[in-house]
Amino acid sequence: MTRPTPLPFEKLPPRAFHAPARIRFGDCDPAGIVFFPTWFALANAAVEDFFRDELGLDFHALHATRRIGTGFAHAEADFFAPGLMGDAVLLTPLITRIGGASYGFTMHVHRGAAELLRMQLVTATTNLDTRRPVPIPDDLRAALARYQERCTDGR
Amino acid sequence: MTRPTPLPFEKLPPRAFHAPARIRFGDCDPAGIVFFPTWFALANAAVEDFFRDELGLDFHALHATRRIGTGFAHAEADFFAPGLMGDAVLLTPLITRIGGASYGFTMHVHRGAAELLRMQLVTATTNLDTRRPVPIPDDLRAALARYQERCTDGR
Amino acid sequence: MTRPTPLPFEKLPPRAFHAPARIRFGDCDPAGIVFFPTWFALANAAVEDFFRDELGLDFHALHATRRIGTGFAHAEADFFAPGLMGDAVLLTPLITRIGGASYGFTMHVHRGAAELLRMQLVTATTNLDTRRPVPIPDDLRAALARYQERCTDGR
Amino acid sequence: MTRPTPLPFEKLPPRAFHAPARIRFGDCDPAGIVFFPTWFALANAAVEDFFRDELGLDFHALHATRRIGTGFAHAEADFFAPGLMGDAVLLTPLITRIGGASYGFTMHVHRGAAELLRMQLVTATTNLDTRRPVPIPDDLRAALARYQERCTDGR
Repeated sequence: MTRPTPLPFEKLPPRAFHAPARIRFGDCDPAGIVFFPTWFALANAAVEDFFRDELGLDFHALHATRRIGTGFAHAEADFFAPGLMGDAVLLTPLITRIGGASYGFTMHVHRGAAELLRMQLVTATTNLDTRRPVPIPDDLRAALARYQERCTDGR
Repeated sequence: MTRPTPLPFEKLPPRAFHAPARIRFGDCDPAGIVFFPTWFALANAAVEDFFRDELGLDFHALHATRRIGTGFAHAEADFFAPGLMGDAVLLTPLITRIGGASYGFTMHVHRGAAELLRMQLVTATTNLDTRRPVPIPDDLRAALARYQERCTDGR
Repeated sequence: MTRPTPLPFEKLPPRAFHAPARIRFGDCDPAGIVFFPTWFALANAAVEDFFRDELGLDFHALHATRRIGTGFAHAEADFFAPGLMGDAVLLTPLITRIGGASYGFTMHVHRGAAELLRMQLVTATTNLDTRRPVPIPDDLRAALARYQERCTDGR
Repeated sequence: MTRPTPLPFEKLPPRAFHAPARIRFGDCDPAGIVFFPTWFALANAAVEDFFRDELGLDFHALHATRRIGTGFAHAEADFFAPGLMGDAVLLTPLITRIGGASYGFTMHVHRGAAELLRMQLVTATTNLDTRRPVPIPDDLRAALARYQERCTDGR
């Protein structure tokens, strides 16, 4: 485990998607900073925005109607600086790998230029009724690949 | 990132500390399984029990009175099987490293013999008023070392 | 809305059910006290314990297998004193009304002798697939009535 | 406890403040609907937006710098219809009472024209260090009164 170095916001790919979030009073702990599990909940909310606004896919229909789960096989965060109540932050997902039944992405979280934390997440697609792995659906795979390419092109 | 293999409960050190937890309805998501950030909240609760019941230290006084924070520099989880509502689980912390101003530990989560997930956590001790790193307090360091030794002895 | 007066723990019915809970670091906000929505989550957890340990009914099977929901039509709390991290509290449900498709109960929360808050909750039983009201199932109705009687007898 | 009747969105005062919120996957429970304590957390987030965007007051500085708490003495909700994942909702606070050291407000939650739930909340202003009641600060009192008047005028 080598500790990554914070990346200034301007070094992100210019065409990357950013999900805004506001740090709430109730997200913070008695130390006055974001309670760390909340960052993972904010990342999941950012993925919902990313699906709807960037990939053009309905995250909720994927689960409720198509019965495809997008649970995590792996979730990891390196914390560089604390988030404080009232902070406006941007969450930026970047695809790192598209496999058969899983895909990996980095989620950068910035407040202004400063990266507060970075998450590495691996999503496994499953059938929600059998709880077994299923291949990434074609429309999701294509949308992830297009986004990944756009981010790489723009560098 | 090589994916770890689940460890059967009986392979844990015999003198390891176990914090019990019950998976609640409200911990679960529309997929009917534990919403993954909740596992990190349960790990933090297990650390509080570990401090009180195993290390003999008051986690809350550490923060509120001594003003020492035990925030995370790194948090990571590999998910092997989902937790379901009503599940009784045991969380087992094992110390992996005691540094100058941080310590690392693994948190195993079992339901019966099966490991559901495994977390790797790095805690950095800080001064809560300045938000700067401080050396691990002596009483905490000694207690962590004793527990680490006890777990190793017992193997 | 007349504000109720805190009830000392010893005034509760002697045969009432008590669900223990521990206030966690992550349950508390930057003011250092329990973030108020968390009290409602703790109440729901206490109801799960009450079903299993007092009523002899499986709350989770009721939802997952029998597809009967026990959502709230009304939820209300009067806060008398704050909960602090590390506090051990007891939650005591007392049935106030058993109707056709809903039942009401009070949830007292005590730390030692002192009542910290009191909730008034109305649960409506629904079919989880149609989201329509259904009569309280017979086994639940009978168990609630027995518990209500036991609490009244003991006064 | 008489159950209120849902109010169509167009019956709200025309100059009322509305805080938008999006229902997240992680806000929902295994019944597929918003876990009810989450509504109170969303109400608190709406109050933060209301302070910043309508009252022109910094909610977080109020707590962190001025050390004035705005905890709840009473919180209550009537649930009319469930919130579903992906829903876009609007939260509308309306001041009902401005007292010496507390103020009351209604929080309406609408999805489109339909009111999903209505909360009644009483905030008590306190000194965060002594945890004793303090008079509502003058700037907050004046801002609340102006907003209350604006909502009444507009009817």
